[in-house]
Amino acid sequence: MSLLVVGSVALDTIETPFGKTKEALGGSAMYFSCAASYFTDVSLVAVVGEDFPREHIDLLEKRGIDTGGIITSPGNTFRWKGKYGYDLNDAETIDTQLNVFQHFQPTLNERQKNREFVFLANIDPDLQKSVLQQMLQPKFIASDTMNFWIERKNESLKSLLKNIDTLVINEAEARQFGQEANVFKAARKILSWGPKALIVKRGEYGSLTFHNQAIFSAPAYPLESVFDPTGAGDSFAGGFMGFLAKSGCLDTDNIKQAVVFGSVMASFAVETFSLERLAHLTEDRIYERYRELHNMACFEDLGD
Amino acid sequence: MSLLVVGSVALDTIETPFGKTKEALGGSAMYFSCAASYFTDVSLVAVVGEDFPREHIDLLEKRGIDTGGIITSPGNTFRWKGKYGYDLNDAETIDTQLNVFQHFQPTLNERQKNREFVFLANIDPDLQKSVLQQMLQPKFIASDTMNFWIERKNESLKSLLKNIDTLVINEAEARQFGQEANVFKAARKILSWGPKALIVKRGEYGSLTFHNQAIFSAPAYPLESVFDPTGAGDSFAGGFMGFLAKSGCLDTDNIKQAVVFGSVMASFAVETFSLERLAHLTEDRIYERYRELHNMACFEDLGD
Repeated sequence: MSLLVVGSVALDTIETPFGKTKEALGGSAMYFSCAASYFTDVSLVAVVGEDFPREHIDLLEKRGIDTGGIITSPGNTFRWKGKYGYDLNDAETIDTQLNVFQHFQPTLNERQKNREFVFLANIDPDLQKSVLQQMLQPKFIASDTMNFWIERKNESLKSLLKNIDTLVINEAEARQFGQEANVFKAARKILSWGPKALIVKRGEYGSLTFHNQAIFSAPAYPLESVFDPTGAGDSFAGGFMGFLAKSGCLDTDNIKQAVVFGSVMASFAVETFSLERLAHLTEDRIYERYRELHNMACFEDLGD
Repeated sequence: MSLLVVGSVALDTIETPFGKTKEALGGSAMYFSCAASYFTDVSLVAVVGEDFPREHIDLLEKRGIDTGGIITSPGNTFRWKGKYGYDLNDAETIDTQLNVFQHFQPTLNERQKNREFVFLANIDPDLQKSVLQQMLQPKFIASDTMNFWIERKNESLKSLLKNIDTLVINEAEARQFGQEANVFKAARKILSWGPKALIVKRGEYGSLTFHNQAIFSAPAYPLESVFDPTGAGDSFAGGFMGFLAKSGCLDTDNIKQAVVFGSVMASFAVETFSLERLAHLTEDRIYERYRELHNMACFEDLGD
């Protein structure tokens, strides 16, 4: 089935202990759609400025992504400048220029309104709701969020949760949102607000997925070098939603497999700056990492 | 097969956000032997002072543990006083009184020397080596250590590694010992110093096991309330070694299962102070948690 993502497109200037990049292609919708494109058809809704390089659109089109929903507005593209130290779990934001993203009002065309799978990347929960209201018959809706919205739009976020299937957030944000130091308690509280499933991303420690009373713990793919963690969460979500949309099945076993594909796609995203690796993969490389994670996580059950 | 543990016996005074306990039974060898006793015969070698309450010995004997190797020396028992905040990963040591433990020189009798499985709990690596030298034909040796010995007896520790099968340490200690921020790089370095396997304990994030080029990631058992994390690592090691000694098989599949029993036993240890829960379990409760972890971690492989 086909997949729609609404989110940001950005030009990222990033410094890590291993290198620097200037105005590289980034943004939640970029990482997401690129990761998901290995599994299913993806349409992207976002806004860029008049300065946005055409080559970036070409890159997405080469991956078969429907870029018709990328609107060009007068002004400059959203820019983010950040820095990571050796603790790659925390980004330090040096500068944010929202530019055209500040007035982003996603409006869907008929084709987009008919998509069955929807990912609402990390934007204002009121905008996320306005996208949902435009959808005609979505089959599965997932959304991301961040501490900024948890603090400033808490009620709006909670009311969004009533209308989505899965919330995908970081562990620190899950604790903050649920106001519990214990992640399992926090998860129980968040689930009580409406979503059928919750995925808690734990960086190098993998993820926890809560679905139908089941808890699934998936490891992160083991990497000796993480070059730039930017986009890991959105690539995770792209692998997850891409696989689900491809299979169309929403039972717990399938959701577990989808989460593992999320781990796989996140691992490719963090090995280089921007989409350098994520945009140039083969199915074989993706399946190989899935199998490695299977060997890494699975063990024998007890006999009777 | 039978199992020998050499380590500490302590009286712990602990404060957590959930309660306090005074001079409760603790120490690495206590948690380890209690956890392992559900799987196999365990002999314990340790030292206590003349003040050590007889009831603690009775508790171990009720669990079928051979306490003949607990020597009573003139003086007081080792005492540890610590405190945990809401971040239960870090203990703050308020006071340590080594007492009789300061002059602990483990001497094995003939029965102990013939044990096939040996766990060298966290003591001076020179003492760990002296125990190994007394063993007649050990089949499997594992040891623990801590930052204190990594800093002060680094070379001694490295030379110990040449003669053991498995090192079991915390993640922060693995990074410190391997001098690498990345845990996989750190693990590769530690393995190059000799042990056939390495288990990295990651607290609430579970563990990583490195064995024969394979990496195994096991989750921690999901607990909504961790009451007192003291003894988690030693109970983990007890479950791990106990299961291995019971089965006698050392292939990777069996080591994976043993690690999962480690997670299970650690989860019981942290639900109460001291051995309150760990000493009063049933096989059914243990197997039930193993099965829950199996459901929590395992997922389907890809078809061809």
